[in-house]
Amino acid sequence: MKRLLIVGLMLAASFANAQKSPKNIILMIGDGMGYNTVSLRILEANGTSNFERFTHIGSIKTYNSDGGITDSAAGGTAFAIGEKTKDGVVGMDANLQPKTNLMEVAQKNKQATGIVVTCALTHATPASFSAHQPKRKMAEEIANDIINSNIDLLVGGGIKHFTKRKDGRNLFDEAKTKGYNVFTDTTSYFSATPQKAMVLVADEHLKAADKERGNFLPRATMKTIELLRDNKKGFFMMVEGSQIDWAAHGNDANQIKAEMADFDKTIGAVLDFAQKDGNTLVIVLADHDTGGLTLPPTEVNNLSEEYGSYVVKFSTGAHCGTLIPVFAYGPGAEKFQGIYQNSDVFHKIMQLKKWGK
Amino acid sequence: MKRLLIVGLMLAASFANAQKSPKNIILMIGDGMGYNTVSLRILEANGTSNFERFTHIGSIKTYNSDGGITDSAAGGTAFAIGEKTKDGVVGMDANLQPKTNLMEVAQKNKQATGIVVTCALTHATPASFSAHQPKRKMAEEIANDIINSNIDLLVGGGIKHFTKRKDGRNLFDEAKTKGYNVFTDTTSYFSATPQKAMVLVADEHLKAADKERGNFLPRATMKTIELLRDNKKGFFMMVEGSQIDWAAHGNDANQIKAEMADFDKTIGAVLDFAQKDGNTLVIVLADHDTGGLTLPPTEVNNLSEEYGSYVVKFSTGAHCGTLIPVFAYGPGAEKFQGIYQNSDVFHKIMQLKKWGK
Repeated sequence: MKRLLIVGLMLAASFANAQKSPKNIILMIGDGMGYNTVSLRILEANGTSNFERFTHIGSIKTYNSDGGITDSAAGGTAFAIGEKTKDGVVGMDANLQPKTNLMEVAQKNKQATGIVVTCALTHATPASFSAHQPKRKMAEEIANDIINSNIDLLVGGGIKHFTKRKDGRNLFDEAKTKGYNVFTDTTSYFSATPQKAMVLVADEHLKAADKERGNFLPRATMKTIELLRDNKKGFFMMVEGSQIDWAAHGNDANQIKAEMADFDKTIGAVLDFAQKDGNTLVIVLADHDTGGLTLPPTEVNNLSEEYGSYVVKFSTGAHCGTLIPVFAYGPGAEKFQGIYQNSDVFHKIMQLKKWGK
Repeated sequence: MKRLLIVGLMLAASFANAQKSPKNIILMIGDGMGYNTVSLRILEANGTSNFERFTHIGSIKTYNSDGGITDSAAGGTAFAIGEKTKDGVVGMDANLQPKTNLMEVAQKNKQATGIVVTCALTHATPASFSAHQPKRKMAEEIANDIINSNIDLLVGGGIKHFTKRKDGRNLFDEAKTKGYNVFTDTTSYFSATPQKAMVLVADEHLKAADKERGNFLPRATMKTIELLRDNKKGFFMMVEGSQIDWAAHGNDANQIKAEMADFDKTIGAVLDFAQKDGNTLVIVLADHDTGGLTLPPTEVNNLSEEYGSYVVKFSTGAHCGTLIPVFAYGPGAEKFQGIYQNSDVFHKIMQLKKWGK
């Protein structure tokens, strides 16, 4: 009968130890998506935003290794390798030493891996998770790193950096010898079931959300999840809403709204999967704020007691130094509460997965 | 032997039901303190900000009952009565009906109650918790409500609305007949041990944090906690960093930094108490963002990969419509996670305390 007590105590312990290790992790980066950008989306969606489904919220300090405002390379790299680095650097520390990234750790631990973005795969954020180069502009070197990354599924743009190169190499051909299926249109990818694939559907970046990109991001994300989930050990995946940043650099409120609606829709599909799966941690965050978006009143009248509705205003065409919100859902989500460094996101994932480098 | 299983299961249930009811609740409002205002403070404090001690973060939608940008009256009232109302209204719903506020509910439940602010006690935020009037500008009517509020300790400014009135009444004399000790300087208050006191130390508002106010807010807050904690049933208290808002209205970055440093220091002292006490929930939030503060780079160079340090910029002299962060610590803090309405803060407190109206 003591067994009954043991069962009871084990139950108690399992409740107490709420911090489960999730089987799958999906890290979603809204490039340039500040707190106010999320605010705008939540207000515009009027109660229907998927951001409202997150149970846990945190905040990260995003400054780079020099203490300055981060770019997407240093920002993405902090998540990918767990160290702050200099602006412009991908997958290397501040001394320009290549460091093991989360995709490589996941692979070492027999996980399936994937990246889905709406920019060129060689661009700063995806490159932080798939390459090790001192300059984000070294697109050809980054492309070479990518075909050697062994990441199972790579989805985005950037064909020209693989096939129209100064060195004359055709990296698509080389990728095929490494076991990659190469797709250059979404339809073929969506109807195939490759274990290893490079899906590049634009010469450089994809179109904007309000300009013919359609449902690419949510569909490519869900297709990739569908393939990655076949791995019994689980998967690690990075999804980027890449063009929120560009809309913000351009101080284009309507384009920000379109990119945020697209990213929100993708989050919704991912959360639906995570909710059903029960063993997937979803983390949504950003590398930095872009544009310095605020929501002041339509008319400013300081004497009035009433402000009316808001308009979208920008303070800069560049990045900002403000902290950035983190939204988490699923087993281990509680670990992403509080205020911490952007580089701690890496270490929290490592601890949750009980991964050593 | 089944008893052993039952004990085990009860243990499991108690772990699962981690949501304890706190004995004391301290609600701290940084008036006009947006996410970026908090960001600025955290970056300036360089790892020493007390905001970093909070375990749980949430986010609130602050728009008023018309869906417009809120003022401090509608914002404070949403927290105080659990309903959104019109701009300018204190302690009443959108139909201008007086509604029971948290101080009144706490009193009905035998709790001690207190308010500490750096503005006139008749100003919008404290008035939301101590009065019921259709216009925040009705300072004399609000003062009359305050002396009838039965709130144990009331600390701030606003002497003239009590003693230099159009109706010729002296509300300090009337307050004394209702059992209040009246203090008009901090020294007397800090050395006394009143059960019921009105402490008004300025004719209207107190000085700014960077202009002779000194340690008023942290000291008055801790003195008030010291007195309120004598109540065995616990206490409910509202503390306001009132002048963050005015510094932001004036787009004065240095004054914002000074007000935020003062509010942060007060938060630190309150968290020290809560940590030691173990039975106090601390909630820090704001009614709205003021000024549209952002942190763009010192020099904007879109071609550069490096941004350098930030400067403080403002988009407006008015309030903004952005969501507002909520920081919580102590028993029940987990209830303040996620994204919800400003008016839900009231209901979360009611549920945690198991209070009926």
